Amino acid sequence: DRPLTVIAGPCALESVDLGQEVAGRMKEICQAAGAQYVFKASYDKANRTSLSGGRGLGLDEGLKALQSVKDAIGVPVLTDVHTEAQCAPVAQVADILQIPAFLCRQTDMLLAAGETGAVVNIKKGQFLAPWEMGNIVTKVESTGNTRILLTERGTSFGYNTLVADMRSLPQMAQTGYPVVMDATHSVQQPGGKGGSSGGQREFAPVMARAAVAIGVGAVFIETHPDPDTAPSDGPNMIYLDQMPALIDTLMQFDALAKARPVSV
Amino acid sequence: DRPLTVIAGPCALESVDLGQEVAGRMKEICQAAGAQYVFKASYDKANRTSLSGGRGLGLDEGLKALQSVKDAIGVPVLTDVHTEAQCAPVAQVADILQIPAFLCRQTDMLLAAGETGAVVNIKKGQFLAPWEMGNIVTKVESTGNTRILLTERGTSFGYNTLVADMRSLPQMAQTGYPVVMDATHSVQQPGGKGGSSGGQREFAPVMARAAVAIGVGAVFIETHPDPDTAPSDGPNMIYLDQMPALIDTLMQFDALAKARPVSV
Amino acid sequence: DRPLTVIAGPCALESVDLGQEVAGRMKEICQAAGAQYVFKASYDKANRTSLSGGRGLGLDEGLKALQSVKDAIGVPVLTDVHTEAQCAPVAQVADILQIPAFLCRQTDMLLAAGETGAVVNIKKGQFLAPWEMGNIVTKVESTGNTRILLTERGTSFGYNTLVADMRSLPQMAQTGYPVVMDATHSVQQPGGKGGSSGGQREFAPVMARAAVAIGVGAVFIETHPDPDTAPSDGPNMIYLDQMPALIDTLMQFDALAKARPVSV
Amino acid sequence: DRPLTVIAGPCALESVDLGQEVAGRMKEICQAAGAQYVFKASYDKANRTSLSGGRGLGLDEGLKALQSVKDAIGVPVLTDVHTEAQCAPVAQVADILQIPAFLCRQTDMLLAAGETGAVVNIKKGQFLAPWEMGNIVTKVESTGNTRILLTERGTSFGYNTLVADMRSLPQMAQTGYPVVMDATHSVQQPGGKGGSSGGQREFAPVMARAAVAIGVGAVFIETHPDPDTAPSDGPNMIYLDQMPALIDTLMQFDALAKARPVSV
Repeated sequence: DRPLTVIAGPCALESVDLGQEVAGRMKEICQAAGAQYVFKASYDKANRTSLSGGRGLGLDEGLKALQSVKDAIGVPVLTDVHTEAQCAPVAQVADILQIPAFLCRQTDMLLAAGETGAVVNIKKGQFLAPWEMGNIVTKVESTGNTRILLTERGTSFGYNTLVADMRSLPQMAQTGYPVVMDATHSVQQPGGKGGSSGGQREFAPVMARAAVAIGVGAVFIETHPDPDTAPSDGPNMIYLDQMPALIDTLMQFDALAKARPVSV
Repeated sequence: DRPLTVIAGPCALESVDLGQEVAGRMKEICQAAGAQYVFKASYDKANRTSLSGGRGLGLDEGLKALQSVKDAIGVPVLTDVHTEAQCAPVAQVADILQIPAFLCRQTDMLLAAGETGAVVNIKKGQFLAPWEMGNIVTKVESTGNTRILLTERGTSFGYNTLVADMRSLPQMAQTGYPVVMDATHSVQQPGGKGGSSGGQREFAPVMARAAVAIGVGAVFIETHPDPDTAPSDGPNMIYLDQMPALIDTLMQFDALAKARPVSV
Repeated sequence: DRPLTVIAGPCALESVDLGQEVAGRMKEICQAAGAQYVFKASYDKANRTSLSGGRGLGLDEGLKALQSVKDAIGVPVLTDVHTEAQCAPVAQVADILQIPAFLCRQTDMLLAAGETGAVVNIKKGQFLAPWEMGNIVTKVESTGNTRILLTERGTSFGYNTLVADMRSLPQMAQTGYPVVMDATHSVQQPGGKGGSSGGQREFAPVMARAAVAIGVGAVFIETHPDPDTAPSDGPNMIYLDQMPALIDTLMQFDALAKARPVSV
Repeated sequence: DRPLTVIAGPCALESVDLGQEVAGRMKEICQAAGAQYVFKASYDKANRTSLSGGRGLGLDEGLKALQSVKDAIGVPVLTDVHTEAQCAPVAQVADILQIPAFLCRQTDMLLAAGETGAVVNIKKGQFLAPWEMGNIVTKVESTGNTRILLTERGTSFGYNTLVADMRSLPQMAQTGYPVVMDATHSVQQPGGKGGSSGGQREFAPVMARAAVAIGVGAVFIETHPDPDTAPSDGPNMIYLDQMPALIDTLMQFDALAKARPVSV
């Protein structure tokens, strides 16, 4: 069991500069703590709560920006895809294609992502039981691609609220694939601010810690130098300058968890 | 307030023959009861629980089959779209484009559907509060298209279960658009049979009745001559031969409800 | 199937005068509409959200007030009990003993209530599935008392929110006992105002109507001449002067529902 | 921040012998691991799913059995109370009075428990938001007793299912009182076996670990030499012979968590 991987970056890839700043800083933080690091950012926000929410750089500019982060910082990158057609071009740049939670049952997209040969990170839909991920994994596996990650990002719990069921982590691990805890979106309050989503940033480290103690392959944490000015998910992103202490703590829990694995 | 519209048909458009049989029978039933009728069927099941679930006729064959139903039976037709690209060709045939619940926040698809000028029926996501539909309506309205319907089809309630919150109907009506009660998918048990969804067919008429009593523009009910042999949603489709009594009852409740509208 | 029974009154039995005013007015309203009527009020609020919430008249004064309503107005009365010891004295006055939802699994209280021989109205706990009411019914039946009513009052749905699952009504009816729809507490927002519960009064008629259309034995509706000054459940009680129109409408739906019963 | 306290024992106090066996073994296990230990068992199961479920030794025999455990093993004991009247006699023996989750809003019982001067452990109702515990704490504090513990034991999540929201732990800690994670009842499936509750014993250690990593004052774990023969909560109790490894692991996480406390 390898040490924890940290998937981190800003929600939206606002600019090349922001991407390089966050990726560079996170690479240092993770190296210092002994964690693997993957840069994450979105080139398009295709399902914003409201029409007036910004969409981002778009596919072409976005892929250039991701490539520049890879080139300048030397880290693998993850980004989300939104249609079948995006999978192949995105896989030219991204090391990990991420399937958004709302789209996790769209068969054609899962197949297109699988066929690229890239790692496919599937977010469990907010409407899905953990044991249903087996059916989704089978869709990707049918392409011959078994480089699969499964991510917990919270489950619908009444209106405008998610709950992270910790049983989900060992349940999804029974597929045999690494499990990722998305500590950022688990504490999102979807649509909670009327025209945009709210969030409880203060609980993201709590979720990350609980998950790492149970034992996961990776944590997914959105971070930004100044979350309150970010175009999306500001309320649940963590301040970049709080990441060193958080990652260091998580690595301590990770070492302990992997020395004493849970058996379910 | 016009009399209730009934949107009904088989979940999957299995064949031209099945389409014509169901549409023909439903047209008679609705005429007898004084209801408007719209034929519904899907040409592609793009988000099946499992890979082995049948997909259907596909876009080309499916549109031909829908056209044949329109021509032969003389009824308007509704079908669901799954990508931006499908919107324009489907609108050549279908009178109503339906946005699947999982996809109800995908901005580009909402815009593409709106731009066709066809009626757009948006299913409320299982993960969405009723009051969030205002943001979604705004996306479609931005195209200049205000021919919009909003459908309740159940909300996530624990795992493998949905609950239909009746408050959703007057809440969505506050947008000013007609509201549709999907009595079939409200009683679905998503993923409840492992490799496919379960359902509680016996409660579909209960849901339809409650909704019509509150006051809705339309009910959406999937029906089939032999649901237990249907390729999808068999457990929650209603037997075609039970539709005359159901529609007749619903029309009685509709008349009473519209004579005494709720005010919220 | 007899016409609908209306169980109505103020949440708390604030005074003899208020009790007689509401009971007298509701008796007239129900007679005019052809409904059976039962007066409802609580002599003690034993589980207020916060300590500073008023408790009410207490057992002795409360029973005298209930008796005065029976004597002066000539209607049967329902009130809730909170301990085993209260059952016998309350049954000296009340025609129906009501088991509060939080207490619906307390075996000794169910037995004590059953042993009085009075009608026992059991509210389904917010934490209970409808099909679990069979086990609870068995507890009361073990005393030889089969004068049982089962009430739907909403189920926990995330935090501070309830949802009324309409499937619950025919499911509970499968026990063979009459089912009551509590339209008031189904729209409560438990703890929603911090130190007290909130509510959505505007949806109570919606819930009542949906339930009556499905077919129930009774509706339970809290009402007050001036809900905003009431000591408890003000946000979800209905104005007394809106009851004539509501009851009249419900009776129309009741007649239709009982002419065309659902079969589940 | 003191080391973790372990509250453990069989669900039901079946006999003096079972009590002494479990208490004796758990005392050794906790001493070896450096944990504080409190014995837990119930003398009465007052809210069994069904009438045929065993109730236990009853108050008089039960208190004698608890006293014998205290005398013979020399450990503090916790047991639950079910009525106001039970509080004083139980406090003659028990060090900690536990308020069952269903009863956590019953004002008179909270006051009676507080007035004994014993420690009062309040289980958060399955229907309650974590932030509502402040109102409940105020009820006990009004007696002058501030020896209070607050326990998370899962929240209603659809039917027959609970979910443990890890945010609840730091939220309840904001009251200033120690928080307990009940790892056993969080994985209960209420009513899940028809006439009794089901459970997912395999996830109890997962919940305990996640909670301890976040930082709690105590864990509550039911254990039995042979859970499958136990009269209640068998499906979610842990085998006594698995406790040494579990407690040892939890103490390692506890040390790490308390060295690096979360701040919310």
